[in-house]
Amino acid sequence: MKVKFDELKAITKQAFLNMGLSEENAETCALVHCSSSADGVESHGMNRVPRFAEYVKKGWINVKAKCELVKAKGAAENYNGNLGIGVINALFCSDRAIALAKEHGIGLVSLKNTTHWMRGGTYAWKMAEAGFVGISWISTESCMPMWGSDVPGVGNNPFCVAIPRDDGQIVVDMAMSQYAYGKLGVYRLAGKQLPYPGGFDKEGNLTSDPAKIEESLRVLPTGYWKGSSLAIALDLAAAAISN
Amino acid sequence: MKVKFDELKAITKQAFLNMGLSEENAETCALVHCSSSADGVESHGMNRVPRFAEYVKKGWINVKAKCELVKAKGAAENYNGNLGIGVINALFCSDRAIALAKEHGIGLVSLKNTTHWMRGGTYAWKMAEAGFVGISWISTESCMPMWGSDVPGVGNNPFCVAIPRDDGQIVVDMAMSQYAYGKLGVYRLAGKQLPYPGGFDKEGNLTSDPAKIEESLRVLPTGYWKGSSLAIALDLAAAAISN
Repeated sequence: MKVKFDELKAITKQAFLNMGLSEENAETCALVHCSSSADGVESHGMNRVPRFAEYVKKGWINVKAKCELVKAKGAAENYNGNLGIGVINALFCSDRAIALAKEHGIGLVSLKNTTHWMRGGTYAWKMAEAGFVGISWISTESCMPMWGSDVPGVGNNPFCVAIPRDDGQIVVDMAMSQYAYGKLGVYRLAGKQLPYPGGFDKEGNLTSDPAKIEESLRVLPTGYWKGSSLAIALDLAAAAISN
Repeated sequence: MKVKFDELKAITKQAFLNMGLSEENAETCALVHCSSSADGVESHGMNRVPRFAEYVKKGWINVKAKCELVKAKGAAENYNGNLGIGVINALFCSDRAIALAKEHGIGLVSLKNTTHWMRGGTYAWKMAEAGFVGISWISTESCMPMWGSDVPGVGNNPFCVAIPRDDGQIVVDMAMSQYAYGKLGVYRLAGKQLPYPGGFDKEGNLTSDPAKIEESLRVLPTGYWKGSSLAIALDLAAAAISN
């Protein structure tokens, strides 16, 4: 079934309005979620709207909250996201980074107490659209064992770099796990093995069988010890920068 | 055979003095090369001194050249390295980044026309020692095939992140290839297979045999398509930032 983008966006926007989002935020969130799906990033698009609604109901996302400045020094600003809408908070911070970069040549904006920002590339991409090299990353919940461990102890913290280009921005948006959990499900449902090993089974053997990895929760870091180390460093750096 | 650090450094410093380096630069280069070896990073330590001497003889490194400011805007500065000593140029830029960060909350320094900076982590580490989260990367010569290609087309561009900590800085210094060429040689000479596949053989099969990878020059990017994409992005970002 094919659905026209504008129709999908209109329905999604109405859903966000029903959750209590403002007109402007509902429009923005609908655009971001629908664009991810339209771009083929199914894992962070339309499929996330029901979970977002659930989190609003549970009080885990405050749709009225706004980013609050905690500290500022020259080209660097820290914000408290007050558990507001992750996408709106991160877009706000991207705009601030762009404004700071215009003034100071570079801008650094950090954000704490926020909620899921969906597709990480969105924010580096926005900065590239403004003519700047954009870098964005976030610390996720612990979903990946560190190298040498068999229990999830670090996030698969996505790291995104975008470079401005006249014929369309170049964007790299990569999680520190070799495969997303969503991707494992896609392969399992299709009855396929992963093209390369994606994790360990319960016995600690490297495997390309998605079901065995879903069972063990031992997804493989990107490049073994390297993705594990970078995930830890990104986590620490984010914590240090955002105080 | 064990050699005392200070003896090694003194001999190395004399070698650098013989190549025409100033007293101060010879001291700094000796310290950086010897520290890398002492830290176990054999690939970018003492072993690089003869090659450095060769490059000076060939005129590829100008030991008298200094970094020259090309452009400055607030917290961002661009330098021309004038093909001077890579280590000295990069340390100079690290110092500038620290000074800018002290003034503006963050500093960005880019450098073009420089020579090999040896161990990439040195520079992020220096920034962490000054109390800042440090990020440093460089574009290397093309030594790694992009994902899907069978000829070296991109550098294995090392990316380094350092986080300040009272009990010693935390530093991640990782090339975008799963194994360094130096590491392949170590395994080959020991008659060992790599612990995980490190590249492709001439027939395009993934292999853990170091000799076959040295023969094909097809080292594997860290995390397959991910390290390849990030290497390209880092290369483009460095080019864009340094003009």
